[in-house]
Amino acid sequence: MATPTRIGLCGLAVMGQNLALNIAEKGFPISVYNRTTSKVDETVERANKEGNLPVFGFHDPEAFVQSIQKPRVIIILVKAGSPVDQTIKTLSAFMEKGDCIIDGGNEWYENTERREKAMNEKGLLYLGMGVSGGEEGARHGPSLMPGGSFEAYKYIEDILIKVAAQVPDSGPCVTYVGEGGSGNFVKMVHNGIEYGDMQLIAEAYDVLKSVGKLSNEELQKVFSEWNKGELLSFLIEITADIFGIKDDKGDGHLVDKVLDKTGMKGTGKWTVQQAADLSIAAPTIAASLDSRFLSGLKEERIEAAKVFKSSGVSDILTDQNVDKKKLVDDVRQALYASKICSYAQGMNLIRAKSIEKGWGLKLGELSRIWKGGCIIRAIFLDRIKKAYDRNAELANLLVDPEFALEIVERQSAWRRVVCLAINSGISTPGMSSSLAYFDTYRRERLPANLVQAQRDYFGAHTYERIDVPGSFHTEWFKIAKQSKI
Amino acid sequence: MATPTRIGLCGLAVMGQNLALNIAEKGFPISVYNRTTSKVDETVERANKEGNLPVFGFHDPEAFVQSIQKPRVIIILVKAGSPVDQTIKTLSAFMEKGDCIIDGGNEWYENTERREKAMNEKGLLYLGMGVSGGEEGARHGPSLMPGGSFEAYKYIEDILIKVAAQVPDSGPCVTYVGEGGSGNFVKMVHNGIEYGDMQLIAEAYDVLKSVGKLSNEELQKVFSEWNKGELLSFLIEITADIFGIKDDKGDGHLVDKVLDKTGMKGTGKWTVQQAADLSIAAPTIAASLDSRFLSGLKEERIEAAKVFKSSGVSDILTDQNVDKKKLVDDVRQALYASKICSYAQGMNLIRAKSIEKGWGLKLGELSRIWKGGCIIRAIFLDRIKKAYDRNAELANLLVDPEFALEIVERQSAWRRVVCLAINSGISTPGMSSSLAYFDTYRRERLPANLVQAQRDYFGAHTYERIDVPGSFHTEWFKIAKQSKI
Repeated sequence: MATPTRIGLCGLAVMGQNLALNIAEKGFPISVYNRTTSKVDETVERANKEGNLPVFGFHDPEAFVQSIQKPRVIIILVKAGSPVDQTIKTLSAFMEKGDCIIDGGNEWYENTERREKAMNEKGLLYLGMGVSGGEEGARHGPSLMPGGSFEAYKYIEDILIKVAAQVPDSGPCVTYVGEGGSGNFVKMVHNGIEYGDMQLIAEAYDVLKSVGKLSNEELQKVFSEWNKGELLSFLIEITADIFGIKDDKGDGHLVDKVLDKTGMKGTGKWTVQQAADLSIAAPTIAASLDSRFLSGLKEERIEAAKVFKSSGVSDILTDQNVDKKKLVDDVRQALYASKICSYAQGMNLIRAKSIEKGWGLKLGELSRIWKGGCIIRAIFLDRIKKAYDRNAELANLLVDPEFALEIVERQSAWRRVVCLAINSGISTPGMSSSLAYFDTYRRERLPANLVQAQRDYFGAHTYERIDVPGSFHTEWFKIAKQSKI
Repeated sequence: MATPTRIGLCGLAVMGQNLALNIAEKGFPISVYNRTTSKVDETVERANKEGNLPVFGFHDPEAFVQSIQKPRVIIILVKAGSPVDQTIKTLSAFMEKGDCIIDGGNEWYENTERREKAMNEKGLLYLGMGVSGGEEGARHGPSLMPGGSFEAYKYIEDILIKVAAQVPDSGPCVTYVGEGGSGNFVKMVHNGIEYGDMQLIAEAYDVLKSVGKLSNEELQKVFSEWNKGELLSFLIEITADIFGIKDDKGDGHLVDKVLDKTGMKGTGKWTVQQAADLSIAAPTIAASLDSRFLSGLKEERIEAAKVFKSSGVSDILTDQNVDKKKLVDDVRQALYASKICSYAQGMNLIRAKSIEKGWGLKLGELSRIWKGGCIIRAIFLDRIKKAYDRNAELANLLVDPEFALEIVERQSAWRRVVCLAINSGISTPGMSSSLAYFDTYRRERLPANLVQAQRDYFGAHTYERIDVPGSFHTEWFKIAKQSKI
């Protein structure tokens, strides 16, 4: 090959392979490399099949690096953690000052910051770029969240803009997120929100199926219908699809044969841990993580169900006669209101981190790049963008005038659904913790005065008063003892 | 002073001062030291006043260390983190092979493990010892959770056994917890459980006050009454006390003047983060942490309350006519059932860590040392101890036959209270997340099948089936697309 390629990509598993083809298809000749070289040949073959796309394969890292035009940019898509370090070591040996590596994996943001520093010491640039959209997104237009060196971002902005998902009226789903590990951090919270969305949909399904007795056909219709309104989104769309798919190994629908055990890969866990670190309440996201943990205890759950059934507590406590149409409408509203709470938590988490790190992240702009390409893409994100456009300093999505109104309109249905679930003995941890979040946040006076009084009682932690400024301590124990004499 | 003392204590803030007096009172001559030397004089003065206790003060660290009999044991009670490192540096300069330092603070367990290793390299021993009970506990009998060097524990076992709280029929509230940072870890989870207990009590208070319209006098009576039954505990007792205390700055009760903002010091946060790390659902503890976070947003809450009030959503949604006596009884049951869930989470967290680290922690024995001295001390802990005595391998407290029965008896009241709160628009995040935990854990089939189907749809994460072993992947998208054509 005489002419150098525009960019390189290393790591040709599902995401890497599809992203490479996407880049080539947009007119940028790309070099590809993978440690297991059969993946290289596979990718080149696919490139030929899918329209003679300009993908050039290399079995040797040095030749791979040399084939790229200077300053070189290489996207790596390997497993987060030490495989990234190993790949950087391999590639950077052949790279020169001003060259750049972009990690497109779900990496812990601090690892990116450590690597950026180490790369800078060698005169190399570094970006940590969140890539969302799964296989399909990577191939035809993902949402991209690049953070790190602005200079490096500028090198490849033209590529990213074409490769990213395109949303009418709001442009390509990419923006320069900010410095350091901000791109990874934002992607992490995106995934946390995704956990929340999936859990809320699962709860809606559970209530409709277990209490409302809807069939898979009815569920498919309901979710298809929902996908035409305020809930229009990728996850609602694929949920409708799922209910329509028949089991290829037997009778009935495939969804009923899928084991109720959910896997996870770490970003949800990090989101919950970061929320705790930053003093941000994120109960909806935490509930979705806990639900995944509890789903994994299948054998324990079978045993527990036996224990309680033998005491007369059946799976569904009471067979309630419900108006299906009314229930579907209530559940839709509960799902939407809960979703507002979940996104409010995620956005506030991003803001808190941005303040801590001085990243200057723009919540409206992040909502914009999530409108397309990524797993949480939804018409709803346009509303969030507009809320931040109206007021960039908005303390919480809940108090945006439009969202507040939407919640007020839906709160009765929301409370009905959660109570129906509770009285039926099924759990809706996402919806109920969202509702508790709403009812806590909108409350001027909480019972936290008692907690603080307790803390002062046993630990002399002091308290403030509602009427006089300052910090106070009371000898509660002594006073109580005297009054008992 | 001619005769060396038996032990030393460094760090004479509230906890240190009281623990030193406690040790001296039990007949062990003690040397005390503090960087700010006025604290030393203050402690010696208190020792004289409180009965000529054998407390010997030192203004100089070298003289302090030299005054203790060999092998020397020094308890340090300074702020967690770098003050501990600084103190170790100061003291260890004068210590000799075989001497031992015991950190009695709320330290992150990994810091203890790091320090133990560094100390061992110098031939010194190290213990991280959780101390619970606040000021009163430290003075008259705390619960002690020492972990680290067993050899060091044996040196001072005689002291700890006398200094710890004494519980009739179950002995002193101390045991050798295990190796490494296990003492700190167990104390951390103790504090997480404490957060949960305090939150659940605050919610009970909120429901009784805001919905039931109970006065402080009535609340005092209710909590005093509760303290005679299954809820008998230190926290219920002090809650009753708190409702009885009049404001010394004006009319009414002090609790109503305390600002509804709750402080925290880190152990609750760590507990939640560790739970996420270990894949243990701990929603009740997480809800109590989130409630503290949201309590801190007082100004935001005032604004949010205005926004929603202007839309007609008042603080308490409906003024319900409730039967006070029935409500009190329901709330007691809801509180008790929620408490079982919260402790189940905490105990499972300890077990998961014990397995990860190979600590071999004994859950029944830990329940025993929490029966007295510490903040969560309660008659309830005896039930937990008995549950683990019956079955040390118990998967979850919920399925212990006695606890299961207690929950079954209380579940109707529990559901009534949570729904009443929801319909009144007040939040009971601790009680409702406990209920969701119960209803999730006792459920054989969860809607997690849908979540896993979604994950396989967009990310090819594969799924298991209920009928055939193995791992499967379906081309959901392709099949759905074909069926749409």
